[in-house]
Amino acid sequence: MSDKADGTTLLLGHGGGGELTRRLLAQHILPAIANPLLDPLTDSAVIALGGGAEGSRLCFTTDASVVKPLFFPGGDIGRLAVCGTVNDLAMMGAKPLALSLALIIEEGFTVEALEAIMASIGAAAREAGVAIATGDTKVVERRGGDGLFIATAGVGLQLPGLRLDAALVRPGDVIVVSGSIAEHGLAVMSVREGLRLQSAVHSDVAPIAVMANGLAAALGEDLRFLRDPTRGGLAGVLADLVEGCGHSVEVEEGAIPLREATRHLAEVLGLDPLVVANEGKLVAVVAAERAAEALAVCQASPYGAQAAVIGRVIAKKPALVELCTRSGGRRWVQRPQGEELPRIC
Amino acid sequence: MSDKADGTTLLLGHGGGGELTRRLLAQHILPAIANPLLDPLTDSAVIALGGGAEGSRLCFTTDASVVKPLFFPGGDIGRLAVCGTVNDLAMMGAKPLALSLALIIEEGFTVEALEAIMASIGAAAREAGVAIATGDTKVVERRGGDGLFIATAGVGLQLPGLRLDAALVRPGDVIVVSGSIAEHGLAVMSVREGLRLQSAVHSDVAPIAVMANGLAAALGEDLRFLRDPTRGGLAGVLADLVEGCGHSVEVEEGAIPLREATRHLAEVLGLDPLVVANEGKLVAVVAAERAAEALAVCQASPYGAQAAVIGRVIAKKPALVELCTRSGGRRWVQRPQGEELPRIC
Repeated sequence: MSDKADGTTLLLGHGGGGELTRRLLAQHILPAIANPLLDPLTDSAVIALGGGAEGSRLCFTTDASVVKPLFFPGGDIGRLAVCGTVNDLAMMGAKPLALSLALIIEEGFTVEALEAIMASIGAAAREAGVAIATGDTKVVERRGGDGLFIATAGVGLQLPGLRLDAALVRPGDVIVVSGSIAEHGLAVMSVREGLRLQSAVHSDVAPIAVMANGLAAALGEDLRFLRDPTRGGLAGVLADLVEGCGHSVEVEEGAIPLREATRHLAEVLGLDPLVVANEGKLVAVVAAERAAEALAVCQASPYGAQAAVIGRVIAKKPALVELCTRSGGRRWVQRPQGEELPRIC
Repeated sequence: MSDKADGTTLLLGHGGGGELTRRLLAQHILPAIANPLLDPLTDSAVIALGGGAEGSRLCFTTDASVVKPLFFPGGDIGRLAVCGTVNDLAMMGAKPLALSLALIIEEGFTVEALEAIMASIGAAAREAGVAIATGDTKVVERRGGDGLFIATAGVGLQLPGLRLDAALVRPGDVIVVSGSIAEHGLAVMSVREGLRLQSAVHSDVAPIAVMANGLAAALGEDLRFLRDPTRGGLAGVLADLVEGCGHSVEVEEGAIPLREATRHLAEVLGLDPLVVANEGKLVAVVAAERAAEALAVCQASPYGAQAAVIGRVIAKKPALVELCTRSGGRRWVQRPQGEELPRIC
């Protein structure tokens, strides 16, 4: 029997960040290591460092970066690794402190490419205001020519007085996206071996901790929920939101920032921009009366100029994500299955 | 030109943990990311969390585990990943708090092997008293059949009042090893594809944080230096010690715990046990008058029954590692080059 048929081996789609990934985790990975720190499955774990309610809370997260190719329009695996981890900390309301860097390099990898990636890691870390505090480097035999995997972990301290939880979201709250979507995934796909498309789409990969920390500081408890729409895209975050809060959300397709070049490339590739990964965007759910302030904070960031309110939470059961299309129709947005875009981050 | 000749590409030996690894880091990896947290290049970074001299200090470390094969006598990549990271925290005098777990899995990897490795991760974490707090899972295309890489990172809080630094080591201090050496590396080599030796050598992979924390608590400032002799083996740690303290060390070959089966296998493979990796041992430098106490703490651990004093620090320049051999001779012990044992951890 083939890998695809019998369920006893892993498929590429298990790493896509969608429904297959969720099942892999739930059935084969999490049961052996379940514990109260891990079980929320948020972007970062939150660890109380003692001192009671007044004590500081450490956020801790990790990313394995396996993007292919290593260099893509708008970024490379080094910038991606740093930003991915910094952003995961920021989505939990933490100010990033330090990152770790584990490199797995293929024998025969060029020193020139390694130095280019290290320079990119250094630049992204400086931009994000974090130190690479610790690392490990391994070399493995030459194989498929992928060359390099990077695993980063990050620690940060959670801003005090913050509660971010989908369970706090209530009908009437509005959904903000910090800028135009689907650029990272499509930029990578456009240069994936075998495609070689001419593309004007550049990855949005960027550290957005300053923007996220700014939202948390400005809105306090009126910021309910914060996520970066990476693997699984905007659709994945909205599915998580609906599942976590138990309410429906209604999104205006025409309000979602999407560049024309991105839309065009998505059509060529037959992909729905809603499920394509972003690496420098956030989705925030905020109290409706604070929406203008949330937009202003985002727009003050170099990475948030196109921030927009795209929809709202509504008291409608069953809890689903409903898209009001440009043509005036309505459709349900599903959680992506995960097969669409392997090796995108 | 071949990879080996022109210096523009990486070799397997660059990942061996010896001199080649050191040069790779110094020339091509560290310059782009240098900062005060990283620069000491200790087993863990130490991050002050505020509160001044009284504030807590966070230790943070990472390991990329690429051992081949994934299952070996005495352990597997899961146990190895957890223990490696827990032990790196413990060597900095920290009590481990939590680990992160990044999995990079090859398409076609069996669910059965994944579940066995996850069970091993869970068991090792429980034994070490740490939670797997956060994770990431990626799937990459089928290639060499290696199947799985694991990157772990760990955080812990440093025990208060501790100073561990080779620079504090002084002539007269003694060197303790917590048990018999070279078992991990040789156990892995014995089952490496192409060798298939019948071997009685099992890996020593184990979490030794309780033992290390016990030494720190019992000896305080009389514990000067603590390291686990992983890649590069005992010889690598002694080379680091001599370089860090500026004094020589004199080691009695006959005092170094080494099982007969290990010695035999090392001879068959043409390896010096001093440079072979351990994964459940520590090397401690302690004030001479506390040596008996240090041994007692180690021997109270299930992993320290064979602990022994193997040598001492002497005021002799230039600073070198001198081995007094069983046959009554003397030889200098060099830092291993790193080509000997790739993919051992």
